[in-house]
Amino acid sequence: MMNEPKQMHLQEKIFLLLRQQILDGALSSGTRLLPSRVMAEELGVSRNTVLVAVERLVAEGYVVAKTGSGCYVNDNVALGTNATASLGAIAPTGFMPYRSDIVDFKSGLPDLSVFPVKRFGQLYRDVMDHITPAELGYGAPEGHIELRREIATYLQTYRGVRCDPASILITSGTTQAIGIAGSALFEGQSHPLAVIENPITVDIRRILQKLGAEIYPVPTDQWGLCTSALPSHKAPRCIYVTPSHQYPLGAILSAKRRVKLIEYAQKSNCYIVEDDYDSEYRFDGHPISAVQGLCPKRVIYIGTFSKTLSPALRIGYLVLPPSLIAGARQMKWLTDLHNSVFDQLVLARFIRGGHYYRHLMKMKKRYRSKRDFLLACLQQHMGERAKIIGENAGLHLCVQFPGVVFSKNLLDNLEQAGVRVYPVWEHAGTDTSFDDTIILGFGMLSPEKIDKGIGILKQILL
Amino acid sequence: MMNEPKQMHLQEKIFLLLRQQILDGALSSGTRLLPSRVMAEELGVSRNTVLVAVERLVAEGYVVAKTGSGCYVNDNVALGTNATASLGAIAPTGFMPYRSDIVDFKSGLPDLSVFPVKRFGQLYRDVMDHITPAELGYGAPEGHIELRREIATYLQTYRGVRCDPASILITSGTTQAIGIAGSALFEGQSHPLAVIENPITVDIRRILQKLGAEIYPVPTDQWGLCTSALPSHKAPRCIYVTPSHQYPLGAILSAKRRVKLIEYAQKSNCYIVEDDYDSEYRFDGHPISAVQGLCPKRVIYIGTFSKTLSPALRIGYLVLPPSLIAGARQMKWLTDLHNSVFDQLVLARFIRGGHYYRHLMKMKKRYRSKRDFLLACLQQHMGERAKIIGENAGLHLCVQFPGVVFSKNLLDNLEQAGVRVYPVWEHAGTDTSFDDTIILGFGMLSPEKIDKGIGILKQILL
Repeated sequence: MMNEPKQMHLQEKIFLLLRQQILDGALSSGTRLLPSRVMAEELGVSRNTVLVAVERLVAEGYVVAKTGSGCYVNDNVALGTNATASLGAIAPTGFMPYRSDIVDFKSGLPDLSVFPVKRFGQLYRDVMDHITPAELGYGAPEGHIELRREIATYLQTYRGVRCDPASILITSGTTQAIGIAGSALFEGQSHPLAVIENPITVDIRRILQKLGAEIYPVPTDQWGLCTSALPSHKAPRCIYVTPSHQYPLGAILSAKRRVKLIEYAQKSNCYIVEDDYDSEYRFDGHPISAVQGLCPKRVIYIGTFSKTLSPALRIGYLVLPPSLIAGARQMKWLTDLHNSVFDQLVLARFIRGGHYYRHLMKMKKRYRSKRDFLLACLQQHMGERAKIIGENAGLHLCVQFPGVVFSKNLLDNLEQAGVRVYPVWEHAGTDTSFDDTIILGFGMLSPEKIDKGIGILKQILL
Repeated sequence: MMNEPKQMHLQEKIFLLLRQQILDGALSSGTRLLPSRVMAEELGVSRNTVLVAVERLVAEGYVVAKTGSGCYVNDNVALGTNATASLGAIAPTGFMPYRSDIVDFKSGLPDLSVFPVKRFGQLYRDVMDHITPAELGYGAPEGHIELRREIATYLQTYRGVRCDPASILITSGTTQAIGIAGSALFEGQSHPLAVIENPITVDIRRILQKLGAEIYPVPTDQWGLCTSALPSHKAPRCIYVTPSHQYPLGAILSAKRRVKLIEYAQKSNCYIVEDDYDSEYRFDGHPISAVQGLCPKRVIYIGTFSKTLSPALRIGYLVLPPSLIAGARQMKWLTDLHNSVFDQLVLARFIRGGHYYRHLMKMKKRYRSKRDFLLACLQQHMGERAKIIGENAGLHLCVQFPGVVFSKNLLDNLEQAGVRVYPVWEHAGTDTSFDDTIILGFGMLSPEKIDKGIGILKQILL
């Protein structure tokens, strides 16, 4: 029935019209349809159009054709009730898109104005030119070997991660990586305990809860997760940490605590989930190597391209200890089989060609100067009133304003004045000790916008 | 530290070497490191390379620099145990890739040799040339509006689905669509009952079970799901059906049973999940309209591009009743936020340009002639011994060989002889009544391969 859409439309309309009358009971069981010639005249269409529509009613069993006598409405094909009433109003959802019309300090967004669109366009065309029928079919849940190879090389060289392509599983970003790691970890466990940092991205808490974990928040300070506060009453199944750049407070987990964390995990026979979401950008000195490199058997490592390239790509990955590889692959298979092969191949070739490394270098310079500019603006406008936290790395920093409470009301006022900032309390559960602290993402913002935003912030707050 | 990879490598090696010695305790707490000049000579590298490595050890807290005195190993940074032992062997997984070296009758694969690679390559480049920074950021969980618009138009015109872009949610294929629909349906329900057809794709059963549903299989016959066998003791939460082309047996749900199904769903206040996976290919007459069009409030409709274009694309969708839209968006967000924006935009433009409709027309002709050829081969080689089932639609048909049992042993023998076929019992749970029936997918196979495969089948079976 692959006619052109326009012709289709007319036959379809007639078919739908008649079917509706049958379903509603307007054309009741046993009723003879008008002869096709008459119906065609009445509707002002060709007889052929009517014949196709009626043929379809016959094919679907709404109508029975009796040779030499015509077409009759079948028995028991009317609906008793109001089933076909029109759709109700659509409920709105709560996902806030980035606002480019004001100064939006949303964190975790890279500078998308310099995403290498041309290079990606070329690579997509190259990939499509040379893709094989086998690659166009169903792939492996762990992801395409080309991409896993490139990620393994990158992680070994730049992040001190001990891995090979077989320990990597490609995911649709960090969110899915957490879901898959959590499903593999919690399978068959009753009431598993999951330690998280406090504060921590609110969605991470939600995802782990949805997977059935009991949440145990542990405080963080300027050296990261307070390992002395890890639970002693019950062994957790996993400890979720952001050691390279704690989200949102920005601490870097100290070497001593790294060792303590691993020792704790070994003693209590649990896993460390290391979320290394924007570790590529450390501005003061060398990037900190991953905890995974210290103890690959105990650490599930999560990485993403959302902060280095674009969240629109939806590619992240897990580095798994051998004990969890089979389980995680099974979970990925039952979640969505595998990632888009086209995107995986393009990204693999982008890395292999050296473009990724060059992009990282370029972006690091760019973010450093944005950060420096933001720090200068804060110093100039706020002086001693603003206490800066976690400014050594990443795409955001935090600012504490002692005495201020960032209530919903205040946040709304700020947004109306033209600046959107994000409160830490959103990520702190019931803990109110961060009510005076906000997160300022600067990856997407120009110096002009940063200056304007901090200016507005000063007017409202001080 | 975005140096060139080669230079990086040397510094990295020295850093890792020293760190390993510290972690192992070979360089114990308080030990003074060799002066950088000495170490450089010993290792045969430049002094600068050593300095960078040592600086990094200091930055990460493994080593403390004392002015004028040198660098010392820090306290409490050694690991007591064997934590860094090498990774064990990787467990293999059970996902069978398509075998192109033999005749593989895997079902559900389109003919990937004619996938429009050139057109997709062009479209990807066009999309990348014109993409906006906003589109490169985080998107909406329901998917890009351009693609949802195109899908709505397609479904209204070709499938009789009553929807608008707001009722559509883009997913990463059917697998994820089931997971999201199931999560939204089962949330807050204790021991929800899910009716499935028997037989049904084994993974669908697994996914629904993983989501906590109790499974209630209902038999199918030549008119599809036996609506008279729907449960009366307890209202199910959902009924999972493949009405356009039952998988694997190929029946088309009759009009009478469609009405019965909807009446049952209304009476028992449950939802119908309509999996419309390869409805585009009906060879004898008009395609059957979707059940959704009869009762949009009670039906969750699932569609996919895996059978019409390529599974490598990983795009499918849900059409949701208003009551489930918000819940399903929330589930998508917590699963993987949203699909790749690049793939969504390319697919939207592929449909809008009319290419999708032309591709469907072309493929339908192609599959019809493959099916006809397969039927002719079966008739020629097997005659009365083979009973054909479900040949009117889709990318596969079933063949029953009364008296034959397709044991694992027999399947292995067939594969060794050069033909892989798929048993229905794999999808039938504990029901043994399909032990004599196999699934033959023909989408990917050339006439030569089909002929060869049926020839081998005859040799082994008859």
